[in-house]
Amino acid sequence: MPETTLFPAGQLFEFSVRVFEHLGVPGGDARTAATVLQAADLRGIDSHGVARLHTYFDMLQLGRIDPKPKVTIVRESPSTATVDGGNGLGLVVGPRANAIAMDKALAVGSGWVSVRNTNHYGIAGYYVLEALKRDLIGWSMTNATKSVTPLWGAERMLGTNPMAIAFPGLEEPPIVIDMATSAAAYGKIEIARRVGKPIPAGWAIDRNGAPTTDPNAMIDGGAQLPLGSEREMGGHKGYGLASMVDILSCVLSGANWGPFAPPFALRQEIPERSVGKGIGHFFGAMEIDGFIDKDEFKKQIDEWIHVFRKTKAAPGTNGPLIPGDPEREAEAIRSKEGIPLLKPVVDDLLDISAKTGIPFAAS
Amino acid sequence: MPETTLFPAGQLFEFSVRVFEHLGVPGGDARTAATVLQAADLRGIDSHGVARLHTYFDMLQLGRIDPKPKVTIVRESPSTATVDGGNGLGLVVGPRANAIAMDKALAVGSGWVSVRNTNHYGIAGYYVLEALKRDLIGWSMTNATKSVTPLWGAERMLGTNPMAIAFPGLEEPPIVIDMATSAAAYGKIEIARRVGKPIPAGWAIDRNGAPTTDPNAMIDGGAQLPLGSEREMGGHKGYGLASMVDILSCVLSGANWGPFAPPFALRQEIPERSVGKGIGHFFGAMEIDGFIDKDEFKKQIDEWIHVFRKTKAAPGTNGPLIPGDPEREAEAIRSKEGIPLLKPVVDDLLDISAKTGIPFAAS
Repeated sequence: MPETTLFPAGQLFEFSVRVFEHLGVPGGDARTAATVLQAADLRGIDSHGVARLHTYFDMLQLGRIDPKPKVTIVRESPSTATVDGGNGLGLVVGPRANAIAMDKALAVGSGWVSVRNTNHYGIAGYYVLEALKRDLIGWSMTNATKSVTPLWGAERMLGTNPMAIAFPGLEEPPIVIDMATSAAAYGKIEIARRVGKPIPAGWAIDRNGAPTTDPNAMIDGGAQLPLGSEREMGGHKGYGLASMVDILSCVLSGANWGPFAPPFALRQEIPERSVGKGIGHFFGAMEIDGFIDKDEFKKQIDEWIHVFRKTKAAPGTNGPLIPGDPEREAEAIRSKEGIPLLKPVVDDLLDISAKTGIPFAAS
Repeated sequence: MPETTLFPAGQLFEFSVRVFEHLGVPGGDARTAATVLQAADLRGIDSHGVARLHTYFDMLQLGRIDPKPKVTIVRESPSTATVDGGNGLGLVVGPRANAIAMDKALAVGSGWVSVRNTNHYGIAGYYVLEALKRDLIGWSMTNATKSVTPLWGAERMLGTNPMAIAFPGLEEPPIVIDMATSAAAYGKIEIARRVGKPIPAGWAIDRNGAPTTDPNAMIDGGAQLPLGSEREMGGHKGYGLASMVDILSCVLSGANWGPFAPPFALRQEIPERSVGKGIGHFFGAMEIDGFIDKDEFKKQIDEWIHVFRKTKAAPGTNGPLIPGDPEREAEAIRSKEGIPLLKPVVDDLLDISAKTGIPFAAS
């Protein structure tokens, strides 16, 4: 593993808040955005935390993202809505749209919100954890800059398009499913390139569409494969899931779908045309009491967890985890010990510090 | 490929209707049930069509399934409901519960129905095609008899738990995603056993939890692997999806979840205990106009299809399909040429014919 330095979560949070404020994001929104980043860092999803702060910094500074977006409901029914994020930070627009879904759930049993004209929203899991705080079953999806090929394709057409859903337990911690619809995380391919190691077969193709285990061949014009990788192993299913996320988040809201998703970072290629506004998210919330007594549901979730924890273990393993276990365990450790940051990430934060005058103590 | 005989879809439909009626299913319900089976046969999902009629026959004849179920809404909100299927045929309960979801969508923008005390409901895709007829985005999920292990497990804990969703096009046919959350269909493992061929690595484990390519080792006490197969390829994601389907269909409704799903067929093992009633389904329907102008949505779906059809093709392929293509192509052929049935399936139908006196012309 590459070397890392530990930083208290609070220090990174306060720094992030000040950076967002410096760029014109109002105080409350800056805290929300920093909270979403912190959730990623605490839960061990390193690629989506402060590692991305410099990109948000770049985009805000260049005026590519509006620090004070006008977030509006452009159409709605009692249980659904489309929200225009006013080209704001996804880290700000996402939580607001998610709150609309939750409000609708409390009013009519469920709420479903498709969002356009927004930007990258951090980890999908953050939003479903928010729903849990209000005792709701939360759903969250987003499209992203293209990097994944459809099965039998030879080019990037879809993002890693994650989806998340969470279910509350009574005594047990919640079940939190949070997954990209690609075979592997892009971050893992970047790490393989950095350490000069091959990637497993089934993760990627090269620029000609041929399977590759060379991380450079994927990054330099190749593509990631969808979950399932190849036809025989269900690659059409991962492609189907990525398409579902794409359509619910973008076609339903009027955002840029498929290969037309605008890039997350400055260095990324600009799509040849635009078919909507910004990228798209999709949020859902369901009131448990609209289906079953809430406590009865939570007791059964506890029992589900007990039964699945007792599953006979495969040889060489400690047996199945419950979805959400790894992230919760990371959070327990990191909230005490701090967030481990790689040197390039620390350098990014120091660069922001130098450019803004906001102090950042790197050791 | 094993040898098959072609039967007109209409002949199989009429035979199925008469068989269901013979077993006490009222005429309208019998036609509904036969319609669901026919949809599977027409769409090329052979394992879920008349190939299953003998099992439904057995279960009805032994009184394990109620031919005249009392289907009730046990709890509801404007956009959600839990339905008790009265231990009826899933082929009858499913369409009724799905209709409740659709009615709610037309009333308040979306409808979500979890169903307990029901039985196997045919193909997940049937229900989302029904939603398309009413210009709705349909969702459909169900649990099933255990056959899949969680990642790192060594025993059957979940069904192949399929999920489906469909989006209407304007000039183009709809996008229909209909997928089991297992790495492969169980039917493919059965076929491999019949023809004495190995199965691909990544589909299954044996009774000790070790990976196997022997179909017998899976069928005789082993388990299927979830979509993604192993950790490195995203096996935790397939497990997460199967868990999501299980919880939405069963924990939310009060049905038997996980390994406690009652068996589909007589010869299958009875679970050690019951944690609810019957198996469970989950249906959703969303009114497109609650998000965006319906025609604008459909035009964009057409454009989505055009763009994805033009994806650069991987070497040795004709390029990506649109989800739903294979099933629609099968339907176009089979509705003209007939449904190909294997000899064991024909024998099953002849056996029902002999037992009921309902004529079935096998050639």
